[in-house]
Amino acid sequence: MKDRMVNLVHETQDQICKVLRDLDGVDYREDEWSREEGGGGRSRVFSNGNVFEKAGVNVSVVMGRLSSDAAKSMGGGSALGDTRLDFFASGLSLVLHPKNPMAPTVHANYRYFERGKESESGAWWFGGGADLTPAYLFEEDAIHFHQAHKEVCDRHAIADYAKFKEWCDDYFYIRHRDERRGIGGIFFDDLNQNSKEACFDFVEDCAGSFLEAYVPILEKRMNEPFTPQNKIWQQIRRGRYVEFNLVYDRGTTFGLNTNGRIESILMSLPETARWEYCQEPVSGSPEEKVVEVLKHPREWV
Amino acid sequence: MKDRMVNLVHETQDQICKVLRDLDGVDYREDEWSREEGGGGRSRVFSNGNVFEKAGVNVSVVMGRLSSDAAKSMGGGSALGDTRLDFFASGLSLVLHPKNPMAPTVHANYRYFERGKESESGAWWFGGGADLTPAYLFEEDAIHFHQAHKEVCDRHAIADYAKFKEWCDDYFYIRHRDERRGIGGIFFDDLNQNSKEACFDFVEDCAGSFLEAYVPILEKRMNEPFTPQNKIWQQIRRGRYVEFNLVYDRGTTFGLNTNGRIESILMSLPETARWEYCQEPVSGSPEEKVVEVLKHPREWV
Repeated sequence: MKDRMVNLVHETQDQICKVLRDLDGVDYREDEWSREEGGGGRSRVFSNGNVFEKAGVNVSVVMGRLSSDAAKSMGGGSALGDTRLDFFASGLSLVLHPKNPMAPTVHANYRYFERGKESESGAWWFGGGADLTPAYLFEEDAIHFHQAHKEVCDRHAIADYAKFKEWCDDYFYIRHRDERRGIGGIFFDDLNQNSKEACFDFVEDCAGSFLEAYVPILEKRMNEPFTPQNKIWQQIRRGRYVEFNLVYDRGTTFGLNTNGRIESILMSLPETARWEYCQEPVSGSPEEKVVEVLKHPREWV
Repeated sequence: MKDRMVNLVHETQDQICKVLRDLDGVDYREDEWSREEGGGGRSRVFSNGNVFEKAGVNVSVVMGRLSSDAAKSMGGGSALGDTRLDFFASGLSLVLHPKNPMAPTVHANYRYFERGKESESGAWWFGGGADLTPAYLFEEDAIHFHQAHKEVCDRHAIADYAKFKEWCDDYFYIRHRDERRGIGGIFFDDLNQNSKEACFDFVEDCAGSFLEAYVPILEKRMNEPFTPQNKIWQQIRRGRYVEFNLVYDRGTTFGLNTNGRIESILMSLPETARWEYCQEPVSGSPEEKVVEVLKHPREWV
């Protein structure tokens, strides 16, 4: 399974980057990196292109021994506790921040973990998901993104769209703001029910469906007209993205605690962000409309 | 002591804000706020003025019962552990982000805490300090700032500049970058040696000396010429400021964990910040010069 997952994340990276390159009109920068404690990764980042302010697609295959802090942020069920610190993790993680404030940021992640001996209970699990973060809400985009992910879930007995959708809303929650990072999608973790085969098939299908869930939205919005005010609002929303990633995100915490490659971990941060004191959207404005949905998640399909 | 500290932080806020207003040419916005669990504060923020991109001077006087998470981030010596959760905290906290990239950001904080019964050991302590975060290094500014703080320390038997300077370098450390947030100053916490009176006198002297430590530097730099590249570098350094505050800062953590007023806690964040993938200063450049000092703190006086 390790080898199959390693292949999957690399092939998915190739497939996605090819499409992004054609859209953006410029090539990505690639960095292969290795980690002193074991393993490494391949980061690809687009910047200064036509469509993306910053877009990173990273694969990593790391192994070694966890610190107890890292063990806590890794998950895998409470049964694992602070023991069984040998681990293997392979995953693809991407965050795409388009320039146009009408085009949403997207994040996706597909990952496989092992801890301790494979034969022990809770020794392996999959995780993943994809979620959309618009600065402006287009309901048809939200529906398209959720519909695409529901269809993937519906093809697999082990996947439950309703559960994974709610999990996504719960996970990407900025507690101190009482709002979600975005309008959701799906999120799942500790997936180790049934066979490894069934879990892998689902994760593979998710990874293979990402482009059709996101690219039609991007193509529709990337050339929309916008005002300087729209751009400022996008920067403020990006500030919230930074808050979530640095304060709450388990992947970021895990990366910082396992001596991961900093530039690859923090590649999820937008190129620009903004914090205005006591900024509040005007009542009835499009800005307020998106905040309303971030405070009260909606069912989209 | 509670009353004296409450007076001190309010008077210091008045004194500092008056000077900042004269410099900036616009008035601050003031918000008085209260906290459901007890206490409140008075936040004053400058924005859209002539000198500051964003500058916040906040006082808070809060009390209540700590959650055990908040107790951990509050400090006060390990003896306090998870018990004695009743607390009182009064402090002034300021962060000034000037527009001009040649003018350094400054942070200062003066605080007094009580936990549990006043008669028990470790029941009260003071903390505080001030530190400078330049995007470009002017050695004479670093010397002036440190010299001013050394002079305050030298006036008080309980204060040790060398120790507080090192503490500052250690505290404002961005571990995942292996660099400090800025070029330091002084930092002290858990100050409860000798008499309360002696501790208060020192903190009062620190608070009263802030303006002479910082304002001459600001006045010298706030009208320096700069290029668009200097401005981009300033934004990148502000990104690091955000990283420190959201990932490591104990005050921020404490505020987020005690249901503090979010806009006052995050008022420390700059208005704008930037993250470029794998940005590295050119060898021999002024940008590299400041990073060198952030990686290897220097003795300035």
